[in-house]
Amino acid sequence: MEELFSDEYFMQKALQEAEIAYEKDEIPVGAIVVCNNKIIAKSHNLTETLTDVTAHAEMQAITAAANYLGGKYLKECTLYVTLEPCVMCAGALYWSQISRVVIGAADEKRGFKSKMLQLHPKTEIVEGVLANEGKKLLLDFFQQKR
Amino acid sequence: MEELFSDEYFMQKALQEAEIAYEKDEIPVGAIVVCNNKIIAKSHNLTETLTDVTAHAEMQAITAAANYLGGKYLKECTLYVTLEPCVMCAGALYWSQISRVVIGAADEKRGFKSKMLQLHPKTEIVEGVLANEGKKLLLDFFQQKR
Repeated sequence: MEELFSDEYFMQKALQEAEIAYEKDEIPVGAIVVCNNKIIAKSHNLTETLTDVTAHAEMQAITAAANYLGGKYLKECTLYVTLEPCVMCAGALYWSQISRVVIGAADEKRGFKSKMLQLHPKTEIVEGVLANEGKKLLLDFFQQKR
Repeated sequence: MEELFSDEYFMQKALQEAEIAYEKDEIPVGAIVVCNNKIIAKSHNLTETLTDVTAHAEMQAITAAANYLGGKYLKECTLYVTLEPCVMCAGALYWSQISRVVIGAADEKRGFKSKMLQLHPKTEIVEGVLANEGKKLLLDFFQQKR
């Protein structure tokens, strides 16, 4: 049985967001922000729907979480994201000073780690949580596109 | 006399945006997007006003320009920004595939160049346009803060 409030539990919620993106014909990436075991933001990639390259799941999650908290720093929060953040999202996470970032699948080509970037020194990073599930959604999406 | 539609002419418009930010007690950075010599987006840093770390001038300018054009790629556009973009904004500019980026002052500490990042291969970069004016606004702002 899935443990309540584990990283897998919350990543599953982020994966549900990625599935919603998939259904909207968006590259399926989902994110949530959790603060004190409460989900305070949910989002999924909306770059096509909004015709906006900045509308990645993480960007929306950061904005929504800050809006919920009434402050721009996400110091007691964890972001769960189904795919390794890109340079833009890593830059935004840096500015947010978020406490933890839990990543699903790696993105060898576009992920921030391939650019030798680091998040904020205060940010703990956990990788590979339900990575196969996150990756499978992406592979299915691009296969269907061909 | 200032030449019409020169980079200096448009950077002056971006500097006016930075001055608006200054008046709002925001770190004074301004940006505009120009397409066929027409300004299609104007913005300034609003991170404090919106309590949102993603509300940099460039991010808003990219979103507004794409909204104006009805497409997410800014292929025939130039972004003028009074300060060298950070990692987040450089990442967003990469995704936008913008044609040109004209930068005012350098940001040795937080700018994307210090992180060895590159913009899109299709993007021409021009640096140091009215750099002193852009830098002076920032120095005045932080001096006043002390």
